[in-house]
Amino acid sequence: MSKLRAHISVSADGYVAGPDQTTDEPLGKGGEQLHDWVVALAAWRERHGREGGEVNASTAVLDEAQENVGAEIMGRGKFGGGPGPWPDEPWNGWWGDDPPFHIPVYVLTNHEREPLTLSDTTFTFVTGGIEAALEQARAAAGDRDVMLGGGADSINQYLAAGLVDEIELHVAPVLLGGGARLFEGVGPLQMEQVRSIEAPGVTHLKYRLG
Amino acid sequence: MSKLRAHISVSADGYVAGPDQTTDEPLGKGGEQLHDWVVALAAWRERHGREGGEVNASTAVLDEAQENVGAEIMGRGKFGGGPGPWPDEPWNGWWGDDPPFHIPVYVLTNHEREPLTLSDTTFTFVTGGIEAALEQARAAAGDRDVMLGGGADSINQYLAAGLVDEIELHVAPVLLGGGARLFEGVGPLQMEQVRSIEAPGVTHLKYRLG
Repeated sequence: MSKLRAHISVSADGYVAGPDQTTDEPLGKGGEQLHDWVVALAAWRERHGREGGEVNASTAVLDEAQENVGAEIMGRGKFGGGPGPWPDEPWNGWWGDDPPFHIPVYVLTNHEREPLTLSDTTFTFVTGGIEAALEQARAAAGDRDVMLGGGADSINQYLAAGLVDEIELHVAPVLLGGGARLFEGVGPLQMEQVRSIEAPGVTHLKYRLG
Repeated sequence: MSKLRAHISVSADGYVAGPDQTTDEPLGKGGEQLHDWVVALAAWRERHGREGGEVNASTAVLDEAQENVGAEIMGRGKFGGGPGPWPDEPWNGWWGDDPPFHIPVYVLTNHEREPLTLSDTTFTFVTGGIEAALEQARAAAGDRDVMLGGGADSINQYLAAGLVDEIELHVAPVLLGGGARLFEGVGPLQMEQVRSIEAPGVTHLKYRLG
């Protein structure tokens, strides 16, 4: 059966974004360091219209994370634009006219909005809660998996509800000291370590949930 | 120069002990799971007077952690016996008549107490704070390193003071959901990933501090 998988970059002290997140600084203070490992990769740069980059042990990890994914679920914070009702000229996401998803994306929000199509990515705004979003994403994904793209709040909600099959942490060698905390309100919970991989400036830890 | 090194088992959500720590359950609820990986090792069992056990990828990690260590610093919580002044028949630690340290141990406490020698381990109780304890431990260790044995509070204090040279996390595949949190009050701080090692039921992450 199709799995619900999360993968997210996290500091060694457990934050997926630093303190003081704003619309201008959505990853908070210091949060961009969490993504240094992926921004350095040729595979990521190509997908995001940038040149150059490295091939290293993280390349296969990124490929694997993106393999067999038929839909993504993300929180309103990752889609962006701040909280509250959508304005008349609504925010169309952080990713410009050609978002890097290329699969249906389901955005968790409390505020209704018509679907938004940008290039080959359609964002559907789901106000019915996490289970409704998962149902729609699974229907769109078919046999393929559903990716849970973050941020911390949406991953924590799905984890607490017991709906996540796998989570991969990309642990960056930095302490942020505050911010959006992964696993808040989730445990106690036993997991199974699937594998861990050392790569330049990051360790990739994959866990299976019961 | 002699280094100050910490190594400690931690849950994937960042706790070195679970919630509701008591004298009978010093690792709190679920905390014993953090040590499953080490209790399974033949190398650990031999040191603690138990038979059997495994040799796996964690064996070399444990050997390396114990190599070249001339003294240990620990918090009063790890030594045990609860907070407050020492009673007339004082607590002599969790480890019986032959503690597994075999090196001088410096216990951080607010309450004066004469040194305690059990077999070839002498516990010295330091009331002058973390820098005084480090000075005494370094003097005892000579050219060898000083091990910072935990718990979370004492490691966090030394980290916040910029006194730790290396920290190794043994990350167990469990979420405790609460308890004694490593890295509380420490960041922001950039570290350098020295190496990570996958082993059965645990990943060993070693970082160097600036």
